[in-house]
Amino acid sequence: MSSVPKRPKLDGAVDGPAGNEEESEALELIDACQNEIDALNEKASEEILKVEQKYNKLRKPCYEKRSELVKRVPNFWVTSFINHPQVSGILDEEEEECLHALSKLEVEEFEDIKSGYRINFHFDENPYFENKVLTKEFHLNSAAASENGSDWPASTSTPINWKEGKNLLKQLLTKPYGNKKKRNSEYKTFFDWFSDNTDPVNDEIAELIKDDLWPNPLQYYLVPDIEVEPEDEEDNDDNEEETFEDEDGEDGEGDDDDEDEDDK
Amino acid sequence: MSSVPKRPKLDGAVDGPAGNEEESEALELIDACQNEIDALNEKASEEILKVEQKYNKLRKPCYEKRSELVKRVPNFWVTSFINHPQVSGILDEEEEECLHALSKLEVEEFEDIKSGYRINFHFDENPYFENKVLTKEFHLNSAAASENGSDWPASTSTPINWKEGKNLLKQLLTKPYGNKKKRNSEYKTFFDWFSDNTDPVNDEIAELIKDDLWPNPLQYYLVPDIEVEPEDEEDNDDNEEETFEDEDGEDGEGDDDDEDEDDK
Repeated sequence: MSSVPKRPKLDGAVDGPAGNEEESEALELIDACQNEIDALNEKASEEILKVEQKYNKLRKPCYEKRSELVKRVPNFWVTSFINHPQVSGILDEEEEECLHALSKLEVEEFEDIKSGYRINFHFDENPYFENKVLTKEFHLNSAAASENGSDWPASTSTPINWKEGKNLLKQLLTKPYGNKKKRNSEYKTFFDWFSDNTDPVNDEIAELIKDDLWPNPLQYYLVPDIEVEPEDEEDNDDNEEETFEDEDGEDGEGDDDDEDEDDK
Repeated sequence: MSSVPKRPKLDGAVDGPAGNEEESEALELIDACQNEIDALNEKASEEILKVEQKYNKLRKPCYEKRSELVKRVPNFWVTSFINHPQVSGILDEEEEECLHALSKLEVEEFEDIKSGYRINFHFDENPYFENKVLTKEFHLNSAAASENGSDWPASTSTPINWKEGKNLLKQLLTKPYGNKKKRNSEYKTFFDWFSDNTDPVNDEIAELIKDDLWPNPLQYYLVPDIEVEPEDEEDNDDNEEETFEDEDGEDGEGDDDDEDEDDK
């Protein structure tokens, strides 16, 4: 029995005398039960972590083999991004152009998994920036972060060395795109997402890359037979909002154009 | 290599010839990699399930001991419900009264965990209904459900044998409380939640009971020293909208009206 439970404050919602000896004793014993349950939960988490670590190791060679193969398919990643229902929503036209140079994607979970992960975007020589690798890294859990003295939760991203006149971020900042203090889910562009580290805990785009695109990009690279909504500039603003809000049926008129294009 | 990947449809977003022999072969090999990854994922899930099952068994005696102890603390569950920030939000005044008769709560996950769970509410003799136990049961996964021929996803709840003039549900239905076709998150009352099985997959109240109140009710029974935000009616509608829809200012004009309605 590590701690004596505090007396409940009940706002008169409960009848009867507020506590007696018998009740206090029962509460202490419930507290002891709770400690046992908590200890079991902790052990369960540890075992599950070990299973996850084991399979992360087993998956690694598959992912490495896949990275080698992907190099033989031009535009594999940018195509997968474009075909992904949510990620496509943050791709500005010129960013798409830029992401044609994205040669390799890597998602690395930290050894203890829960403490964080990093996403490495490897780029070929390109007209936009000098960096070979852009990394966005998430420190989400206390344990590992406090060891090496970094803040948590926090995310960091590689500063981008834009080539002259090619700063997509700067260009985008000059475009009016509404209220700047928005949630991550409402990022309008890829590099805006990449560079912003204000809310590392609720980064939906990063999570979609880590948990959806990275484990199975092929399902997006290969567009399925079912109809896919066109990411057409005119509809863009609407779509972004719809993706996260479940609105229905607002832009039915545009759908026919799509099929014609595929016949080419 | 189980399946030949389909050709991507790229809408001219990608330069270069759309596909050649070399590329097709690489895609087939990526597909093979994907199958390996999928198989590993499945094995990982199975192992994690086994760990969870093992700990469910280990926790069971603790939970049973706790249930016995809880009987010695009058109003343990109703107090925990009242102090729970979300669950308290669906407690009508007379329902609170009724829940004073709630003597035992049980959450049972099905053997294979992912297929579903049930919540048993055990009641003492009370002025409201005849039932000794009210059960709400969730069938969420195909495997187990299809074996015994039941639909899935689906939830069921014990029909309540109300005593004459004591049907809280009926009373509540006669009260105006807005649009009835609302999501689970917007249930206004406990028995409304209990009796409604229209959206078993997104039943937040059930999940809060299963994943928060059941594993550790003491933290709610014992109100902590820090201030707890009151679940005050006025704020309610606003919060629900923000939490589930991430809307940004689209219906700014309508917001005030909402609040006025709540004041009635």
